[in-house]
Amino acid sequence: MIKAAAFLLSVGMACAQPALLPWPSKVAMGQGSLAIDASFRVALTGYREPRLDRAVERFLARLAQKTGVPIASSFSSDTSQVALRIACDHAGELVEKLGEDESYRLEVSATEARLTAPEPLGILHGLETFLQLVEARSTSFAAPASTIEDQPRFAWRGLHLDVSRHWMPVEVVKRTLDGMAAVKLNVFHWHLSDDQGFRIESRRFPRLQELGSDGEFYSQEQVRDVIAYARDRGIRVVPEFDVPGHTTSWLVGYPELASAPGPYSIERRWGGFDPTLDPTRESTYEFLDAFFGEMSELFPDQFFHVGGDEVNGKQWNVSDAIRSFMATHQLKDAQALQAYFNRRVEAILEKHGKRMEGWDEILDPDLPRNIVIQSWRGQKSLADAARLGYAGILSSGYYLDHMDSSATLYGVDPLAADSDALSRDEKSRILGGEVAMWGEFVDPENVDSRIWPRAAAVAERLWSPGETKDARDLYRRLDRVSFELDALGLTNRSSYEPMLARLTGGALFEPLKNLADVVEPGSLGQRQRTHKYTQQTPLNRLVDAVRPESALAREFAAAVDAGDHAVVQRWLMLWRDNDARLAPVLAKSFLLTEDAVVSKDLSRLGTIGLAALDFKERRTRPTPRWIAEQRTFLTKAAKVQAELRIAIVPSIQKLVESAAH
Amino acid sequence: MIKAAAFLLSVGMACAQPALLPWPSKVAMGQGSLAIDASFRVALTGYREPRLDRAVERFLARLAQKTGVPIASSFSSDTSQVALRIACDHAGELVEKLGEDESYRLEVSATEARLTAPEPLGILHGLETFLQLVEARSTSFAAPASTIEDQPRFAWRGLHLDVSRHWMPVEVVKRTLDGMAAVKLNVFHWHLSDDQGFRIESRRFPRLQELGSDGEFYSQEQVRDVIAYARDRGIRVVPEFDVPGHTTSWLVGYPELASAPGPYSIERRWGGFDPTLDPTRESTYEFLDAFFGEMSELFPDQFFHVGGDEVNGKQWNVSDAIRSFMATHQLKDAQALQAYFNRRVEAILEKHGKRMEGWDEILDPDLPRNIVIQSWRGQKSLADAARLGYAGILSSGYYLDHMDSSATLYGVDPLAADSDALSRDEKSRILGGEVAMWGEFVDPENVDSRIWPRAAAVAERLWSPGETKDARDLYRRLDRVSFELDALGLTNRSSYEPMLARLTGGALFEPLKNLADVVEPGSLGQRQRTHKYTQQTPLNRLVDAVRPESALAREFAAAVDAGDHAVVQRWLMLWRDNDARLAPVLAKSFLLTEDAVVSKDLSRLGTIGLAALDFKERRTRPTPRWIAEQRTFLTKAAKVQAELRIAIVPSIQKLVESAAH
Repeated sequence: MIKAAAFLLSVGMACAQPALLPWPSKVAMGQGSLAIDASFRVALTGYREPRLDRAVERFLARLAQKTGVPIASSFSSDTSQVALRIACDHAGELVEKLGEDESYRLEVSATEARLTAPEPLGILHGLETFLQLVEARSTSFAAPASTIEDQPRFAWRGLHLDVSRHWMPVEVVKRTLDGMAAVKLNVFHWHLSDDQGFRIESRRFPRLQELGSDGEFYSQEQVRDVIAYARDRGIRVVPEFDVPGHTTSWLVGYPELASAPGPYSIERRWGGFDPTLDPTRESTYEFLDAFFGEMSELFPDQFFHVGGDEVNGKQWNVSDAIRSFMATHQLKDAQALQAYFNRRVEAILEKHGKRMEGWDEILDPDLPRNIVIQSWRGQKSLADAARLGYAGILSSGYYLDHMDSSATLYGVDPLAADSDALSRDEKSRILGGEVAMWGEFVDPENVDSRIWPRAAAVAERLWSPGETKDARDLYRRLDRVSFELDALGLTNRSSYEPMLARLTGGALFEPLKNLADVVEPGSLGQRQRTHKYTQQTPLNRLVDAVRPESALAREFAAAVDAGDHAVVQRWLMLWRDNDARLAPVLAKSFLLTEDAVVSKDLSRLGTIGLAALDFKERRTRPTPRWIAEQRTFLTKAAKVQAELRIAIVPSIQKLVESAAH
Repeated sequence: MIKAAAFLLSVGMACAQPALLPWPSKVAMGQGSLAIDASFRVALTGYREPRLDRAVERFLARLAQKTGVPIASSFSSDTSQVALRIACDHAGELVEKLGEDESYRLEVSATEARLTAPEPLGILHGLETFLQLVEARSTSFAAPASTIEDQPRFAWRGLHLDVSRHWMPVEVVKRTLDGMAAVKLNVFHWHLSDDQGFRIESRRFPRLQELGSDGEFYSQEQVRDVIAYARDRGIRVVPEFDVPGHTTSWLVGYPELASAPGPYSIERRWGGFDPTLDPTRESTYEFLDAFFGEMSELFPDQFFHVGGDEVNGKQWNVSDAIRSFMATHQLKDAQALQAYFNRRVEAILEKHGKRMEGWDEILDPDLPRNIVIQSWRGQKSLADAARLGYAGILSSGYYLDHMDSSATLYGVDPLAADSDALSRDEKSRILGGEVAMWGEFVDPENVDSRIWPRAAAVAERLWSPGETKDARDLYRRLDRVSFELDALGLTNRSSYEPMLARLTGGALFEPLKNLADVVEPGSLGQRQRTHKYTQQTPLNRLVDAVRPESALAREFAAAVDAGDHAVVQRWLMLWRDNDARLAPVLAKSFLLTEDAVVSKDLSRLGTIGLAALDFKERRTRPTPRWIAEQRTFLTKAAKVQAELRIAIVPSIQKLVESAAH
């Protein structure tokens, strides 16, 4: 009981802190709070532009949604009788620039709130902060009195979305942008082409999308609409056209670009493939000049991502023409040839007014120092690049398809590990990072649940001061953000039940949910080892529905740590008894038969946990044989089965070890 | 254990029956099943029209959604290699007519399915039935082999939606139509005006919507769009303009229509009000002639609903002019005056080619026999009307705001009770019924959860043979329909968690959900007695979020009945312990403080239930004093508190009585 009381107390104290995420640079809490009711009004003063008007209208609609209070979404420029006064000093860049001033200051008193910022970007961020401050308090919805001064730690806070492997319609992109804005991410990295699909309309080279996309691509009008939508939310849009590898889908319509004879067809499998642009022919560069020129006009951002990853060089090594070109130009290997290609590409992009960005593999001392390296291989390559004078952003450690926990993602810092030893000047070249959502195992139905709320942990890492790193406090705030994103129109929470219900047609839903609530999907690698997947494989199994991070397993672990016997016992009983109800359901559906073993193991974990509790309670020690048996089983149960991990295994291990000692 | 096994067996057997709802007139199950995979194709033969093409496209998209299998939504008129062949015999009426042929025949074998129907309406219904047949089976998604012959028991199967008291935007109306089509309801009764809002654009009398709606009304273009959307789904649209009472919102812009001097303003409270059109002035009829004429052109349906309910006559009784008119025309009381008004209105509608429909109160032997009476007062007035030769539909017993269970709604039959004694001919005048969603306590956020899935119980009552009345089997199918409606884009399930999360900002969500899962909203009457409500009162409290019928309470009751000790005990422990976690959360939010007493009672119910279990287990009888104490408490706990009912009280009563005997 004392432990439970202490737990409640700590929860109580934590709740006194607002659920801001990312946590601002400076927060000082005051006395009292500003009540929010149907009369809530906003005034915009100082510099004005339509983007700010729209932002305030969205803000008011969301405030109404968040509270359920019918707040009018109109606003006034009259400065009397308003609850929130907004003053923006001056305009921002016409095209949002890396490193633009994003700071803001928000003061909330019991009578009014003031939001000020040098530029519109700061106002956009401050409005998100204000929304996060609002909660139901003792007499009304209210924002607690506080003074917040805020600005980002890193200027480049990105989210990378692969729309090639699985097609993501515009509505998915837009709600992703909504989520990004809510947690102050500011770069949408749009992975528009890959072996499995070419996803944008080219008017110069229409066979790119006509033959390379199964008809699933963005029109240029849609792209412009997305860019405007992003700008409204303070987000830059950086397109990626991955060259010279990952280009199978280009070669379906333009086989003459390839390093080996065609014909080519859209790749349906996952993995690395041979097809590569031919870097030895001038016609390749003429094509890229024209195509990148077209895209450079469409995408206003300063940066242009050309991929450059995972070129295996196989097509080059078997081509006489290419080998002879390499000999003539003294290019000793595939890497040297790719470096040559990149220099040519960089020149093309420079001509079109762009700064080149690419994955680690493009790093080459002969490239100019204004390119940006995105590291997927590890923090070392980022540090190496910085030493050579290149700017870089971190994605290694931020791959959402690895299915790491929010706490793990949160622990990765662009300036830690290999970058820790860099000089101040070198460190300044590390611009930030990008969380990456690759497309093998996501589709429009489940992608939100794979991105959110975990991406918000990275958003905080990239925005907040480096000292903000208490994972427990992160989760407190992440839980709220997860609900708020869903309310904003994302499906990170709401896709779960319908996907589960599909598996049984809604019949006997609870036992299936009991299992689903404590299992997590295996990583990309673990899944590919289990099943043969292609682009056409439906993502309709239990592994596709369950959330990357089991909230219940986390709660259960906390209850085990707190020694909350009643709660621990109740869950263990539930799991122990669940398989008897679930097994007949699993046996009936081809989508679920594979999960029978997982359900059985969960039941046994419940039994083991209860036995361990019982030993503790009776103050007897289990026999060495019992202990050994349980350890063996737990080692097995900790492994991925049916592409699923049972997330409570570590807690059961704790109970067993605690009974054993 | 034997009981549990029997329970599983019965579930297993129940699952062998497909989850069709409404249950068809004739179902014969065959051997094997038709596999559904990405190659699923449909061919349309026989009579074709664009409405059928669109229906098949929607059907295919929903099949893809239901299975997660990427099924193309294109279809073919070539008859080779198709899984589902559809043959429609001939066109239906240009404007859907009451009593049109809605029958269809669906044959599914292991190799293909055939859907045939005389008219498009039958095809639409048959496609819904086919979708409900599909489920995950042992080797694939499949539809079980079966032969279904189907047609409705009643021709009028309606849903009445009040959009006046709370505004419901077009998207709410459209998803309501989607839900109706899914369960074969075929009349959308659109309650477009009432004291609290006039919700449609009149071009003849624009002050109706300009001054009577707070700007929340449908444009005529939107109305046409809704009618087309409904027709695509086999649904007639019957507008209601309630006269002469319930007209406050009309009188804001046109006070000269009133029986007492103005000015008038939109009514914000709930209840019955005095303002009434003046039935004694010719100008009133000139207005109605012009306005109903305009609306008759807009709404193509044969029927036109003029309300007529709840005229209190107060304005008439205090007006010298009206009293003198009544004397002149020998109208002895308000009822007689209203009958006079109705005869005039009927003549106007007849001139515009419409059949008049109204609530019980319009019944008057001097009206022609082609009008239709909608009974809200009880089955007796329906039977009375039928005896007088009037057609009628039942709504009494189908009021969703009474918060009755699906089983209760399901038990109401238009041809039972007072109608049971009618002659065959009289019975034939009872056309069907309408489930009614009044607008006092619903808004776009929670309305779906109030309508669905309960309205589906009424849909089955009105479609299926009268002998189909096993409530337990209804629930089995209703649970699935509930998930499927949500997947179709309704929010009947998905609105729940976000509305709960709002109450605590997402913090400590689970204990709040534990409470919410077993409480139900009080009825309209119970709510109004507790709180002062107006149109502006936010519907953002626990009572607005919780579902009308607790599925968990139903499951718990089944476990109590089955003597499933482990399950019963686990829930009781959860409830017993929940208040300790929840109470501090409730205390913090002004929206939740009122629920503290309910949470405390739930906890005590858990304690009592566990004690009762314990007595049983130890085979001892509780003392008479203990029994008396629990009974007293249970009587109190069964009452509505904070507008909520605790739905497990009857089960706890059972446990206590079982321990006492």
